[in-house]
Amino acid sequence: MSDSEKKDVTACLIVIGNEILSGRTQDRNLAYLANFLNDTGVRLREARVIPDVSDTIVAAVNECRAAYDYVFTSGGIGPTHDDITAECIARAFGVELSIDPRARAILEEHYLPGELNEARLRMARVPAGGELIENPVSKAPGFRIGNVFVLAGVPEIFQTMLESLRHCIAGGAPMLSRTIGCPLPEGKLAGPLAALQDRYPGMDIGSYPFYRISRYGVSVVLRGTDAAQLDAAAEELKRIIRDLGAESWEGEHA
Amino acid sequence: MSDSEKKDVTACLIVIGNEILSGRTQDRNLAYLANFLNDTGVRLREARVIPDVSDTIVAAVNECRAAYDYVFTSGGIGPTHDDITAECIARAFGVELSIDPRARAILEEHYLPGELNEARLRMARVPAGGELIENPVSKAPGFRIGNVFVLAGVPEIFQTMLESLRHCIAGGAPMLSRTIGCPLPEGKLAGPLAALQDRYPGMDIGSYPFYRISRYGVSVVLRGTDAAQLDAAAEELKRIIRDLGAESWEGEHA
Repeated sequence: MSDSEKKDVTACLIVIGNEILSGRTQDRNLAYLANFLNDTGVRLREARVIPDVSDTIVAAVNECRAAYDYVFTSGGIGPTHDDITAECIARAFGVELSIDPRARAILEEHYLPGELNEARLRMARVPAGGELIENPVSKAPGFRIGNVFVLAGVPEIFQTMLESLRHCIAGGAPMLSRTIGCPLPEGKLAGPLAALQDRYPGMDIGSYPFYRISRYGVSVVLRGTDAAQLDAAAEELKRIIRDLGAESWEGEHA
Repeated sequence: MSDSEKKDVTACLIVIGNEILSGRTQDRNLAYLANFLNDTGVRLREARVIPDVSDTIVAAVNECRAAYDYVFTSGGIGPTHDDITAECIARAFGVELSIDPRARAILEEHYLPGELNEARLRMARVPAGGELIENPVSKAPGFRIGNVFVLAGVPEIFQTMLESLRHCIAGGAPMLSRTIGCPLPEGKLAGPLAALQDRYPGMDIGSYPFYRISRYGVSVVLRGTDAAQLDAAAEELKRIIRDLGAESWEGEHA
């Protein structure tokens, strides 16, 4: 079976949090997850940002877990009233939500005697069938159920949890990429670039203009799983740029 | 009719772009739009990041324009082969896509004679019934059709286009907010905070822990349209924090 015949392994991120939709907080988890998944050979196909509303979360989780191989959620697993992710995941899967003894033990070890109050104990609730995801930063664990991975929203914790999952993700061929820049206006490169894409249908060629005070140009990103094809397309692109009378460079512009 | 009986005016953002899902580019349009909509009294209820895939874009646009009062899209309106937003919007609305004479005139004025090639002319294509949205930065216009506003992906252009639309957006009561911080662990504040939320059901109270090298704590964000309620809830919150033996401050922590 050739690379192009293999089915892509796909993923989706659901960012749960009013703070992102209100503009208070700039999401940083999407970009981190995207790069993580590139390395593991999984294609991030969608990201959704949704509010702390139970029906909305349940519907999004059920839609996405049916559509993608892996679903990651970020946010809503803390101790406060607006942390409703665990109960929503349980509803989505139609299973019970209860205090997990392993999670409780982790929290009991972390807090001083008498400090593990009712609110904090909420963080030990796991849907039936869920497996814990370790949280070395602030201890309260995430969990995995089916193809859904429930992670914290705080970027440092999200990232640490994600790294611990590297061995659990079965991806396909890693996505390789090269970036070629040039000081041409995008509209001049557009025609030959479309023809290049036609010659390399298995690759994804993206064109991203940039504007700076003293210069402008385009970064062209070539992505694909076949290293030889990638290099061939990059060489063709450099020739196209040279034929248009411009220099090219490797990587993003400074 | 009281504020709470008025129907919220809602919006959704569709970010179109492989570069966001690949991790190459950090989205900045969501946070900007969120703050813009707060001021205009519109609630941003969802954001989706989707790839440059025609069927996916058409489905997302049709789903979102039925579900929300306003839909904003960002990305995919340049001159290259991967800029497919205009044709997808036309498909979603079931209307023709053709060169708009007003858009063509703008581009003809911008480019030197002979420079308006076929690729650049793609940027003058507008679905039938669309109204142009001015682009003072790089000239190629966006457009509005029905309740869908099609904007550029480059943040500087997205922002400029958005500001020109301020008079077109009919929102409800502006969302007001106050942020109160304190050096308490979230788990200590959680119980009284849930009770505060119960006493103010018309408000949205969010709790966001922060961790720094030398300090940790919580920022509590109170949001609502009623200024008097907002202030009353903020005063109650400060008292709760004081009763827990901690100081509070207004605004985000430094």
